[in-house]
Amino acid sequence: MLLTIDDVNKMTSDQFIDVFGNIVEHCSLCAAAVWQHRPFQDVHHFHKVVCEFLDNLPVNGKQGVLRLHPDLAGNVAGGLTLESHSEQKSAGIDSLTLDEKGKIQERNKNYRDKFNFPFVICARKNKKEAILEGLELRLQNSNEEEVANGIEQVKLIALLRMLSIVEE
Amino acid sequence: MLLTIDDVNKMTSDQFIDVFGNIVEHCSLCAAAVWQHRPFQDVHHFHKVVCEFLDNLPVNGKQGVLRLHPDLAGNVAGGLTLESHSEQKSAGIDSLTLDEKGKIQERNKNYRDKFNFPFVICARKNKKEAILEGLELRLQNSNEEEVANGIEQVKLIALLRMLSIVEE
Repeated sequence: MLLTIDDVNKMTSDQFIDVFGNIVEHCSLCAAAVWQHRPFQDVHHFHKVVCEFLDNLPVNGKQGVLRLHPDLAGNVAGGLTLESHSEQKSAGIDSLTLDEKGKIQERNKNYRDKFNFPFVICARKNKKEAILEGLELRLQNSNEEEVANGIEQVKLIALLRMLSIVEE
Repeated sequence: MLLTIDDVNKMTSDQFIDVFGNIVEHCSLCAAAVWQHRPFQDVHHFHKVVCEFLDNLPVNGKQGVLRLHPDLAGNVAGGLTLESHSEQKSAGIDSLTLDEKGKIQERNKNYRDKFNFPFVICARKNKKEAILEGLELRLQNSNEEEVANGIEQVKLIALLRMLSIVEE
């Protein structure tokens, strides 16, 4: 049962942070900051305000947002959030062969060593083959390009998470 | 056993976020963003970078930071973080009379109704009498003044939390 935009517009900030606190992974500040921009006309208006919040962060804030994401196919000490788990599953990350898993983990490590944040990609929109290829290609970019690419993926992930909560 | 600044400077981002993720209440983005500015010379240098992160947030981000804080003496659905609990205890918030509790809750509600974020004060540096008085005085301010006052308190709270983890 999805929420209507009316339901969303009626929420207290605590309710709103509770429901939307993880549309940007582990970054409840995003929900806390955009709450005050209600009423939203619809979920796409709401998403636009989320995107503006991300765009207006200073560059270390953007890099911090990326750093709050888990490594794809990595072993996360604290465990994956529910959202990340089901997204990685939909990309086939949970059914990698040992060889594929090794390749992703190696490229992830190279990516993190170069950029100081993990590779972020919308797993719902990319199958494992596209992810492996994306990792190789994006490793060639500059830090500035990868902050921009990563934040665009964060926006897409946020939209899909929002659409699983609020009707379109 | 406190950490040395060397220990801090050697941490991976995951370790750092794990240890310092709540120096700003519920705002692990702050730790995730400042990690890249290591090596820090000492805890005060580290704190300076935290303050700069807060100062560089857009205004809705600052208001969001305040909104991630619990109401003083309020009933928090998800429970207080360990840090907040012990700070409120040190201010005597856990030993309010019913009358004092009623007064704080009423003024908190007025404050939140006016500013759309909760009253934030460093409970370790203020006893309950000072908090009651502060609530009354700060309620007279403009939104802009209270964003600034609230963020200054957040910085002070962060410093005290950092000093409980890292040696000076």
